[in-house]
Amino acid sequence: MKFCPECGAAVELRRPPDDNRERHICTACAAIHYHNPKLVVGTIPEWEDGRILLCRRAIEPRHGLWTLPAGFMENGETTLEGAARETLEEANARVEMGELYALFNLAHINQVQLLFRARLLDLDFSPGTESLEVRLFDESDIPWDELAFRPVRYTLQDYFSDRKAGCFQFRITSLEPPVKPAQPAN
Amino acid sequence: MKFCPECGAAVELRRPPDDNRERHICTACAAIHYHNPKLVVGTIPEWEDGRILLCRRAIEPRHGLWTLPAGFMENGETTLEGAARETLEEANARVEMGELYALFNLAHINQVQLLFRARLLDLDFSPGTESLEVRLFDESDIPWDELAFRPVRYTLQDYFSDRKAGCFQFRITSLEPPVKPAQPAN
Repeated sequence: MKFCPECGAAVELRRPPDDNRERHICTACAAIHYHNPKLVVGTIPEWEDGRILLCRRAIEPRHGLWTLPAGFMENGETTLEGAARETLEEANARVEMGELYALFNLAHINQVQLLFRARLLDLDFSPGTESLEVRLFDESDIPWDELAFRPVRYTLQDYFSDRKAGCFQFRITSLEPPVKPAQPAN
Repeated sequence: MKFCPECGAAVELRRPPDDNRERHICTACAAIHYHNPKLVVGTIPEWEDGRILLCRRAIEPRHGLWTLPAGFMENGETTLEGAARETLEEANARVEMGELYALFNLAHINQVQLLFRARLLDLDFSPGTESLEVRLFDESDIPWDELAFRPVRYTLQDYFSDRKAGCFQFRITSLEPPVKPAQPAN
């Protein structure tokens, strides 16, 4: 941020009184502009035979790799509505929302991801504009080496493990930046 | 938003290609500026005798009313770190973070609130700059008519009820805008 979104004057980085960190403050109107983490919301859509719906990404980052339907939460919606909307947008898929299953802290990219269990309501799905392909996968067919993001991998691993154990358990996971360039981003 | 934070030119509200809602787009550099919900993170700090730590607000909104320590999550931290930081800032209180206890969707104000169970580590607490007073309350002493926000009220009600039942249960609650001006804000 270089300019004030409200008046167009230059901003400077300065610590406001009674604050403990620097903020972008307008040099003309004195407005303080805060920058906060963003929420990514998505689903683990399960069909009645146990298969899981994944989307192959048509956009960067990680073009061509597989992911769970998820995306940035929008203003004016709930986390559940956002997750269902992303599932509809990316996979043209209708779901009945279930419980919150995973929360990922990605502090290095200022993101919190929430993934919900979801029941896929019909087989009338197809790629949305951000997907190349949408498919149901058995556990044994999951393309583990072609998953787009670490939260997708960890969530699927936990999900299948919990499902086998007969008990889904909500987890919070905090991820550090990927250490090797070869690792999935995010 | 009236001006582009990157180049200072005017922005206009327009739907970008491949998007389904209007965004603020710069008329000069074409940057698209997204606005997303903010996360509020906080704790339910419990002392070893079962009392809960509340803060009386020294700031608007709801100046003078009681709340759980909570505030806007900052970039570069996890939800757990943010909740612990807010507890330290508002109550100068150190906690051991516990499980996620409540998620509130407040779509009308573009907010998601996350409240965590937490164990208060010592009695060396005091009002931070945003608090007038910080106190431990027995369930029977909670100032129910002087609570600042609905999520605080609902969380405390559920918390005491769950504690009596011997089982804390994570809940997601979506709140509509308050109907009567007399109701607590938020």
